[in-house]
Amino acid sequence: MPAEQNLPPPLPREKAARVWIENISPQVDCGRFPIKRIIGEKVQVSAFVFADGHDEVQAVLCHRQAERNWQETAMARLAGDRWSAAFPVDSLGTFEYTVKAWIDHFSTWQKDLRKKFSAGQTVESEVLEGAAMIEAALGRAAEPDRQWLSALAARLRGAGSAAERVTLATAADAGAMMSRYPDRSRESVFEPHLVVTVEPVIAACSAWYEIFPRSVTSSPERSGTFTDLEKMLPEIARLGFDVLYLPPIHPIGRTNRKGRNNRLSVEAGDPGSPWAIGSEAGGHKDVHPDLGTLADFDALLESAGRQGLTLALDLAFQCSPDHPYVREHPEWFRHRPDGTIKFAENPPKRYEDIYPLNFDCQEWQSLWLELKSVVLFWIDRGVRIFRVDNPHTKPLRFWGWLISEVRRDYPDTVFLSEAFTRPRVMYALAKAGFSQSYTYFTWRNTKWQLTEYLQELVNTEVYEYFRPNFFANTPDILPEYLQFGGRPAFMTRLVLAATLSASYGIYSGFELLENEALPGSEEYLNSEKFEIKPRDWSSPGNLRAFIARINRIRRENAALAANRGLAFYPVDNEQLLFYGKHTEDLSNIILAAVNLDPHHVQEGWLEVPLEELAIADNEIYQVHELIGDSRYLWQGSRNYVRLDPASSPAQIFRVRRRLRTEHDFDYFM
Amino acid sequence: MPAEQNLPPPLPREKAARVWIENISPQVDCGRFPIKRIIGEKVQVSAFVFADGHDEVQAVLCHRQAERNWQETAMARLAGDRWSAAFPVDSLGTFEYTVKAWIDHFSTWQKDLRKKFSAGQTVESEVLEGAAMIEAALGRAAEPDRQWLSALAARLRGAGSAAERVTLATAADAGAMMSRYPDRSRESVFEPHLVVTVEPVIAACSAWYEIFPRSVTSSPERSGTFTDLEKMLPEIARLGFDVLYLPPIHPIGRTNRKGRNNRLSVEAGDPGSPWAIGSEAGGHKDVHPDLGTLADFDALLESAGRQGLTLALDLAFQCSPDHPYVREHPEWFRHRPDGTIKFAENPPKRYEDIYPLNFDCQEWQSLWLELKSVVLFWIDRGVRIFRVDNPHTKPLRFWGWLISEVRRDYPDTVFLSEAFTRPRVMYALAKAGFSQSYTYFTWRNTKWQLTEYLQELVNTEVYEYFRPNFFANTPDILPEYLQFGGRPAFMTRLVLAATLSASYGIYSGFELLENEALPGSEEYLNSEKFEIKPRDWSSPGNLRAFIARINRIRRENAALAANRGLAFYPVDNEQLLFYGKHTEDLSNIILAAVNLDPHHVQEGWLEVPLEELAIADNEIYQVHELIGDSRYLWQGSRNYVRLDPASSPAQIFRVRRRLRTEHDFDYFM
Repeated sequence: MPAEQNLPPPLPREKAARVWIENISPQVDCGRFPIKRIIGEKVQVSAFVFADGHDEVQAVLCHRQAERNWQETAMARLAGDRWSAAFPVDSLGTFEYTVKAWIDHFSTWQKDLRKKFSAGQTVESEVLEGAAMIEAALGRAAEPDRQWLSALAARLRGAGSAAERVTLATAADAGAMMSRYPDRSRESVFEPHLVVTVEPVIAACSAWYEIFPRSVTSSPERSGTFTDLEKMLPEIARLGFDVLYLPPIHPIGRTNRKGRNNRLSVEAGDPGSPWAIGSEAGGHKDVHPDLGTLADFDALLESAGRQGLTLALDLAFQCSPDHPYVREHPEWFRHRPDGTIKFAENPPKRYEDIYPLNFDCQEWQSLWLELKSVVLFWIDRGVRIFRVDNPHTKPLRFWGWLISEVRRDYPDTVFLSEAFTRPRVMYALAKAGFSQSYTYFTWRNTKWQLTEYLQELVNTEVYEYFRPNFFANTPDILPEYLQFGGRPAFMTRLVLAATLSASYGIYSGFELLENEALPGSEEYLNSEKFEIKPRDWSSPGNLRAFIARINRIRRENAALAANRGLAFYPVDNEQLLFYGKHTEDLSNIILAAVNLDPHHVQEGWLEVPLEELAIADNEIYQVHELIGDSRYLWQGSRNYVRLDPASSPAQIFRVRRRLRTEHDFDYFM
Repeated sequence: MPAEQNLPPPLPREKAARVWIENISPQVDCGRFPIKRIIGEKVQVSAFVFADGHDEVQAVLCHRQAERNWQETAMARLAGDRWSAAFPVDSLGTFEYTVKAWIDHFSTWQKDLRKKFSAGQTVESEVLEGAAMIEAALGRAAEPDRQWLSALAARLRGAGSAAERVTLATAADAGAMMSRYPDRSRESVFEPHLVVTVEPVIAACSAWYEIFPRSVTSSPERSGTFTDLEKMLPEIARLGFDVLYLPPIHPIGRTNRKGRNNRLSVEAGDPGSPWAIGSEAGGHKDVHPDLGTLADFDALLESAGRQGLTLALDLAFQCSPDHPYVREHPEWFRHRPDGTIKFAENPPKRYEDIYPLNFDCQEWQSLWLELKSVVLFWIDRGVRIFRVDNPHTKPLRFWGWLISEVRRDYPDTVFLSEAFTRPRVMYALAKAGFSQSYTYFTWRNTKWQLTEYLQELVNTEVYEYFRPNFFANTPDILPEYLQFGGRPAFMTRLVLAATLSASYGIYSGFELLENEALPGSEEYLNSEKFEIKPRDWSSPGNLRAFIARINRIRRENAALAANRGLAFYPVDNEQLLFYGKHTEDLSNIILAAVNLDPHHVQEGWLEVPLEELAIADNEIYQVHELIGDSRYLWQGSRNYVRLDPASSPAQIFRVRRRLRTEHDFDYFM
């Protein structure tokens, strides 16, 4: 069509919206992934909203669950064209949110009219323009507002004095009424819409205790059972944990089973690694016969629930050579040129007792669906928390798919990512949907290391999607610091884990100060991964009372239930770490001072952040040391601490303000 | 279809790509707007690229102009899964860029094979897997590579010893050959693609001189002409400017014309404001008869070009009441209820000599097209730079449309945004497409103010789209600092503007130290906006020689042609500013020390950033002070300066390194 050459050049199809909306916060990776919140929280949203010229703008924060109608919250203008508002997330699942904005012609007109009238200018024509604007709004207005506005327009067109009519026109009630019926035909909408995933409280705040059920026994010859573990629940509950996490409870393979201390040769009675899942007794939907029956498991689950403990299972998507899948679905595995199935390896390391699944195989769809059915099998029994083993060796998009599929029907399901790998991959797993993640905490010991790492987790975009779970030890990691630091090291690491992070965990044996490693490694000597390990829970020096105290402090202090606002404060000793958290309303303020040196007494001057805590310079405030239950009165920012690792390597202070009268003194002392 | 209930739950349609690509840099607002570069530059791009597991990945940076084929550049892996590469932008217009990545199965296999073989493991099966991989690549390979690979596969399947075959398989040439034929069927692509706008050098580096042609005269009674200005061009060129900017050259309205000093009453001979465009002599496509004819203008344009000066016109999209548009297109203006057209105002300020255009009117399309035709009219005559008056009072999306429309056919067109308003709006105009922008520089005087502001412009995302043009004065702004600081203040501000920013400008009269303001304001007394102003260009104390020197320094030192890498360095005196720029290869290094106090001598110790400049602690280096043309030998980082505003309020040093032998001394001294 040569005629086209004579057509005018392209123009926008419609009059463009004039308001710009930019930089909505929070968002993750330009909105590619959801932010995360827990039920009952507010999502505080801000954005730049502005237009050309001098016109007033209005902005609303919009949110909706699923495909329901948008709900709108008026935004308030802060400094520098930044606008802000919040919406509550009061049910589980996903919410969309965005910002809409439009030019507010009526309040622009009111503002200009006031200025012109004050400057003594003639405003006859302006008042008529306002009347026309009101008349245009009548079509959008409902009764009785419509009548009210109609009357106002009539009076503006009436015979009153200019002063009278300007007063009417610029009155707050006129503005408020008109703002209920704005012309939003050319409003701007921020796209793409952003998403928040709302999870149960336990996804963000949880104290985990990991135990091998088979070790709840008096003899290494006899496997402990679900029933044995059930008897131990009251003690675990008494220690104050929220989550009881069990390594895989499924049948364990016999082919290439690993012996004690990961030996290739197995001896009679060696129980094998629980992560080598599958035998003639079944696979991922079965329990190891030595642990009991599915009915026993159900009873354990039920009993735990009654005692305030949520059971977490391990999802280890891999198979022993004896797993039924190997026989029934050889197409789900990788094969050598000779047709045999490949075992797991990370060259030159070899895991002959494990066959990895091939997530990229031809029959990937049936595999993915089967793995989803594994999760649903345990969900059907009542399990809602899964600790996922090595998720970083399976495709990121598999997890994205699996977690969103499961959450669609069971939005209360919590997934913990056990990925110890490069930061980007750990973060990507969290973006893909994991509720919580293992971290580098076990290898962060110095003041600089801890401060840097926590800043990254709490004060960057990472905060919006990556929820750390600070495990102090795991069956795979006995950190050097614990190997050589003695009892004070265990106390210090426990306090750090439990107070720096809203979620933390220990693996059983921690409370008994178990610290014997395979020489030159961070592996436990005689690792429980390969043997049954009865324990004396009352061994001398054990930390059970200390752990119970710390978990009670966590439960009694709302500040410790979140990571937002964690801040590090100055102290003039490199071996001392001083930090704090508080609730938004300052009703709960926690400060902690920790001696990072397990061998020597350390002392120093803390700088309490008085301004942040709204404490006046001359104010006397009480600090209640919650571990030893002592109370002190402090004044001013500089205060002294002395931390003796032999007795108390850490102090946790609850700060109480507004201590002004003698009566208050009596009350608090 | 009730049967649907029995279908398996949704699965991804295809096997998902395994590599993740995140956080490409540079980008503006999540890719919503282009970054900006000038022709001949490289675009250095980095991104996080990673996959699950231990597999090797490969990544390429892709770029293309318009809809042409993608060109690919291999990316190199930096630390922490960050990858980087660069592509050149060697023509004007827009380029797209993105990153693609895939799993490199062959080099993963090579890496594992090496490890396994070194560990003494049997690798018979592995070698056959490699042969199969090579055979699979044959279909993608071209001759003679195909034959080479085929032979390699045959040898891997052959009878050689394991060692021989491993050596063959893991050789670098095998890897290099296979990397030419990767399996990219499941590659990942970062989307949306990003865009870079490539502009001529003058868009980023330019020294502007603003002059009212009508003032190039010997008498306030007689308007200067294009021909008069043409005679002055050699002198302007001698001063070293690149751009000669003329306020509007169009016919000026008579209705409500403003008198001298912005008075409402006009006297005989008052010429009116050039921004009140349009009269019976024409509008935006005509020239004021007093200035000459279009032919005279063409001659001026041509003569300027010959002398290395690029002419910039003013785009002021507004009309005097006498503009032909008012009669021919009343629908393009705002009307009062009584049908009259509304003049411009910013209540309570009124601009009765100007009618704003209504960009939102019913007939907006014909208006926008007409305004585009104005730009094209002057482009047809050869104009390529437009200084846009008050763009922030017209819709942002109008500018986005206009600039991209014009650039499609004339990608060498440069637009300068004259917006003095809130930061977000100024930045949004730059995002919409303006090449350069006026800034807050005129109001940034102290060390803290200058440092903070420049950090924002140079070291944040702002750098990617907002190119500052530091005007030291304008017809609208005679800054307080110049009103009261005397000659030293003019020298200081000139050096700051010309060396902090790659683009800067002055409005004529600056070189004559004109500093008389309307009392209590930053408006010029007897403003040239409302009267013809003949000048004595040789008045005592004038800065012409100084300006010529500074502009020559700019031209001779490539470091000053860019803003990237501007850094502020320590100096122990709050009245001294010490900063530097250098080319990437350190072949040109500029340091500047400026006394911000126009009234007193200031002295201090500078800290030269030796490490950044690759100067050893014990190295003797030459600093050549370019204003006074003196040379010094410095050693170490601490060096003393003393700046007397009466003689030299600023020093600009060119640093020359590698001064090691006596011969070098002779050479440099």
